[in-house]
Amino acid sequence: MNSSSKYSFRNDYSELAHPEILKALSEVGTKQFSGYGLDEYTKSAADLIRAKIQKPDAGVHFVGGGTHSNLIVISSLLRPFEAAIAPHSGHICMYETGAIEATGHKICAVNSSSGKLTPNDIEDVVAAHKDEHMVNPRLVYISQSTENGTVYTKSQLQAISECCRKNGLYLFIDGARLGAALCSSACDLTYADIANHADAFSIGGTKNGILLGEAIVLCNESMKQDFRYHLKQKGALFAKGASIGIQFEALMKGGLYEKLANHANMTAAKLAEGIKNAGYEFLHPVETNQLFPIFPKAVFEKLQQSYEFYEWEKISDKSAARIITSWATPMEMVERFIDDLNA
Amino acid sequence: MNSSSKYSFRNDYSELAHPEILKALSEVGTKQFSGYGLDEYTKSAADLIRAKIQKPDAGVHFVGGGTHSNLIVISSLLRPFEAAIAPHSGHICMYETGAIEATGHKICAVNSSSGKLTPNDIEDVVAAHKDEHMVNPRLVYISQSTENGTVYTKSQLQAISECCRKNGLYLFIDGARLGAALCSSACDLTYADIANHADAFSIGGTKNGILLGEAIVLCNESMKQDFRYHLKQKGALFAKGASIGIQFEALMKGGLYEKLANHANMTAAKLAEGIKNAGYEFLHPVETNQLFPIFPKAVFEKLQQSYEFYEWEKISDKSAARIITSWATPMEMVERFIDDLNA
Amino acid sequence: MNSSSKYSFRNDYSELAHPEILKALSEVGTKQFSGYGLDEYTKSAADLIRAKIQKPDAGVHFVGGGTHSNLIVISSLLRPFEAAIAPHSGHICMYETGAIEATGHKICAVNSSSGKLTPNDIEDVVAAHKDEHMVNPRLVYISQSTENGTVYTKSQLQAISECCRKNGLYLFIDGARLGAALCSSACDLTYADIANHADAFSIGGTKNGILLGEAIVLCNESMKQDFRYHLKQKGALFAKGASIGIQFEALMKGGLYEKLANHANMTAAKLAEGIKNAGYEFLHPVETNQLFPIFPKAVFEKLQQSYEFYEWEKISDKSAARIITSWATPMEMVERFIDDLNA
Amino acid sequence: MNSSSKYSFRNDYSELAHPEILKALSEVGTKQFSGYGLDEYTKSAADLIRAKIQKPDAGVHFVGGGTHSNLIVISSLLRPFEAAIAPHSGHICMYETGAIEATGHKICAVNSSSGKLTPNDIEDVVAAHKDEHMVNPRLVYISQSTENGTVYTKSQLQAISECCRKNGLYLFIDGARLGAALCSSACDLTYADIANHADAFSIGGTKNGILLGEAIVLCNESMKQDFRYHLKQKGALFAKGASIGIQFEALMKGGLYEKLANHANMTAAKLAEGIKNAGYEFLHPVETNQLFPIFPKAVFEKLQQSYEFYEWEKISDKSAARIITSWATPMEMVERFIDDLNA
Repeated sequence: MNSSSKYSFRNDYSELAHPEILKALSEVGTKQFSGYGLDEYTKSAADLIRAKIQKPDAGVHFVGGGTHSNLIVISSLLRPFEAAIAPHSGHICMYETGAIEATGHKICAVNSSSGKLTPNDIEDVVAAHKDEHMVNPRLVYISQSTENGTVYTKSQLQAISECCRKNGLYLFIDGARLGAALCSSACDLTYADIANHADAFSIGGTKNGILLGEAIVLCNESMKQDFRYHLKQKGALFAKGASIGIQFEALMKGGLYEKLANHANMTAAKLAEGIKNAGYEFLHPVETNQLFPIFPKAVFEKLQQSYEFYEWEKISDKSAARIITSWATPMEMVERFIDDLNA
Repeated sequence: MNSSSKYSFRNDYSELAHPEILKALSEVGTKQFSGYGLDEYTKSAADLIRAKIQKPDAGVHFVGGGTHSNLIVISSLLRPFEAAIAPHSGHICMYETGAIEATGHKICAVNSSSGKLTPNDIEDVVAAHKDEHMVNPRLVYISQSTENGTVYTKSQLQAISECCRKNGLYLFIDGARLGAALCSSACDLTYADIANHADAFSIGGTKNGILLGEAIVLCNESMKQDFRYHLKQKGALFAKGASIGIQFEALMKGGLYEKLANHANMTAAKLAEGIKNAGYEFLHPVETNQLFPIFPKAVFEKLQQSYEFYEWEKISDKSAARIITSWATPMEMVERFIDDLNA
Repeated sequence: MNSSSKYSFRNDYSELAHPEILKALSEVGTKQFSGYGLDEYTKSAADLIRAKIQKPDAGVHFVGGGTHSNLIVISSLLRPFEAAIAPHSGHICMYETGAIEATGHKICAVNSSSGKLTPNDIEDVVAAHKDEHMVNPRLVYISQSTENGTVYTKSQLQAISECCRKNGLYLFIDGARLGAALCSSACDLTYADIANHADAFSIGGTKNGILLGEAIVLCNESMKQDFRYHLKQKGALFAKGASIGIQFEALMKGGLYEKLANHANMTAAKLAEGIKNAGYEFLHPVETNQLFPIFPKAVFEKLQQSYEFYEWEKISDKSAARIITSWATPMEMVERFIDDLNA
Repeated sequence: MNSSSKYSFRNDYSELAHPEILKALSEVGTKQFSGYGLDEYTKSAADLIRAKIQKPDAGVHFVGGGTHSNLIVISSLLRPFEAAIAPHSGHICMYETGAIEATGHKICAVNSSSGKLTPNDIEDVVAAHKDEHMVNPRLVYISQSTENGTVYTKSQLQAISECCRKNGLYLFIDGARLGAALCSSACDLTYADIANHADAFSIGGTKNGILLGEAIVLCNESMKQDFRYHLKQKGALFAKGASIGIQFEALMKGGLYEKLANHANMTAAKLAEGIKNAGYEFLHPVETNQLFPIFPKAVFEKLQQSYEFYEWEKISDKSAARIITSWATPMEMVERFIDDLNA
């Protein structure tokens, strides 16, 4: 609960849903539909995604949240002795309460200050796992955008994808913030590029304007036939799946998804510009809607009187903040923040 | 998708959500709230439930669906070698793709034509499991109402509860249709009774008027401290948990939950009366919003031209249908069905 | 501990190991060998089995016990949503503490008074599992000999095998007592038949004269490449795997395996003949080294003063005993038992 | 298979079993005993261990191998969201094919060049895991001796133990090479110390002279009641458990365990002295039967013509070897190795 009067830059899921989403839900009335995601809205939402990614035969499914998406995709792809490779800062390594391990699989975590994996990282892990006394790394997990707010470029993703194919590894892209990534000026990737390089990826809705929900996109043909079994077994096949399908249809129609992501990026860029002009540096380059400015303690304390955001990492006598903008962040709040910083 | 013009009596999740629910969502606007179910709406919804069940210290959590609720509660209670006892027709035995087994636990299924467990059933299972070569039954799972649409009465539940306590078994009640059960004229149980007898139970929202969601109520003190870890690990702790909290607040406030359940039960009773008057029998007593009338083949074919419902079980040359009414079933549709049956 | 002076017919693992086995172990001395089953003894034992089953390319591995063998084979074959089909009396259903479920998989148990599965049983299970709301049955588990001491004949096994292939099911044969089965006069199957029909099977050593150990034979090509990963992950790849390899080499060489099984069967047949001549009936046909004679209470009590065996099942005012002979059962003990019965 | 004529210093499980062990097995004859570890030999072996550790009420069980011991102990102690803390070089992190993760639990691996954990390491991990978005570290895993051949001293172990108790963590000590550790001159710990500090620990037999087997010792009272369920479910409860009990009885009786460990340590010390005198350094201090001397490439090549051992780690233009002595290493082989090194 945000009982305080402070404005929150804690994350991009602090506001409920964009009015277009709620309007779409309201318009359904008492129309009847099929259960478990076999309704016309969900089908339409899936078709909109297939068109956007230019992959008419992709499998598209909708689940409630990102951890669920991650654990279902990964556990559906791996055999018992196979493992995932991920950067140490990856969401599945740090913030999912061992959800992947709970499905039986080790994550081979790679230290990476940038939060990105490189082909070299991947090949080092593969080379270190030689025989049956060790897990067999079989899947690469990356996030786009990363937990540091940065993006993989086309050439970076292509190199990872080639490395994966060469080494017989699946590539799964956690797109909880895929909108912010693909709408970033630092990113030269299209939806179709993502679909071409990944075996599976997700498209986050929760962090980009809907009540809750993520799309899972299956590009690898072999994943398609049985995926609903995995969804059902893990508790992700909702009787009223249409509730999420309706929202994704509205989100994917008419560019709303990109409009909302652009707004988050734009307000972040504005904030970053103001913070930079005020003389502060950043822990990571600002490429999407996550900023990690480094403030002295006194500045922290001053700002936290009016704003909520995380203290992310201590850096000698200063600290990096984590500030996140959303589809709903008002520009005046950005300006007020800069004014307060400069005051 | 329900592309046909037939009216569907397939289930109670064919219509999206009651207008009061959508209104509650719409009124939130861009107000900011805390993530992961720590917001004021979720807190308020939990408090309303605690008041309703007269257990001010109960743990209350909200998840997206019933299978998720079942697997999280059961796996949180059992140690690796412990098992659940359930009627063979229980949802966890039949329709959850092995979700409980996927968390590592066997279900000791008891054949029960009524769909209900008795203390004798439970004690037989306990007696048959003597040593470490077998699983140790540790939890009893029942559904209220059952998959047959029937309800446990106060004396039946009390007997089960006593049997559980005597044998050191947890009691978990799957309340995906708890509203229909507690509003049934065949049921003399209160919310407080449920809370007093069960270690944990769920209160279904999906099948009683909201977009999606179930409340999990923890009555056993020992379950409370760490339950959010289980939720998170299994993918059930939604960043925008408020989306469900807001709906449950609206559902639990001012008797909406009971109003919707009563409507489903009332239309079912009306249907049952008409079917009985037309001379047909039922596979199970009609006590809630699920009916299992037995029709000859010709009647089946006639009705299925205008209505959707399941053929549930062949009975010599006839079949039992499964017909379900919902919070949204119009009375005129009930009347039309009876007219068509008599035509 | 068998502190009593009673002779035990409880099971076929009451005596340590045949002298030939201990001799083989003693002859190794301090010769050095490779670890983890890559030694020359294990290789030789595997080759002897490959020759016996006439399958030169079969995968052969050795583990410590039957439950371990069952859980590793089954979990290595099934994907998360897939299930095993087994007779209710199967060892994996009853006596393995949920070991299969602990690897995440449901067992679809079929009631079978004979302890055998039929193609009809299998097809009923397959037909009852239609969509993603249920597990997908993918493997058939049978025991040869069964828990009732009976054997599948060639035509019975062939029918099951054809049913499995038609329905895309793996066939796994638990051969904890495969020796007793194949040496039974009621059984017209050869080792090669077993290997031709099964995707995988085990050859029990523990119950046929060695210290401990089971061979796992992989006939399905797809299982071979990664099986050592499964063994290692589940704790079955012993550093000193040679300890079991040496024993299996001795067991498989020169017909010792069949000699020991024949002795157990022969003493059982002798016992059965005596019991039958004394006027008693049997719960199951006596085909191998397990007997289930039905005795009145007084006979039970008399015999249990001198012999240990299980009371298996109450049958009105009588009970079926379970009596098991082993490779080490002395013929004089059989004769004494018959004398005592007739006394 | 060791087909070459080279002498192997690869590990301490290259030779089968000490003659005393085989003699004990041979003396049993056809004596009958109870199954599943309930026999008199196993009981006697357990009592000998209880006496040695001065803990008359400790739970003692015997399993086939170290990975099995590790996965059963750890999974029996942890609830689903709980994790183990271990040094990165710990056997469970590196060489067990994700066995712990396969039971659903994450390992929080700590980088430690020494291969030992310190209280600071442990507290750092605890401090980094604050809430339900992360696993809850609940158990500390250390090996005695470590994978580097070093030992925890009394004060080191006491500090870890206190840290564990203060933080509500279980302490599990992997004693696959406990004999080598406790017999090391660098180690001032007794068996009783180990039992007083650990909640559970293992005593390795495989690497100290028996065919195969490890003892699991449960010091924490709460682990004792249900441990056989865990053993059975994971495939570790052998029907002919007596096979291991007999060996451990012989091993624990009359100081054989220590005699064998001392021999391994002594030959290692002799090797270390010779290598040091020849002018080479070591990657880790030589405290038990594992040596990591650093040799130039030419020396490596020369030695590997006559001896088998691992190249463990490249160190600029040299490499550290891993050389292991065993209970069976002949002193003349040690001398020959030194001679060859100096030649």
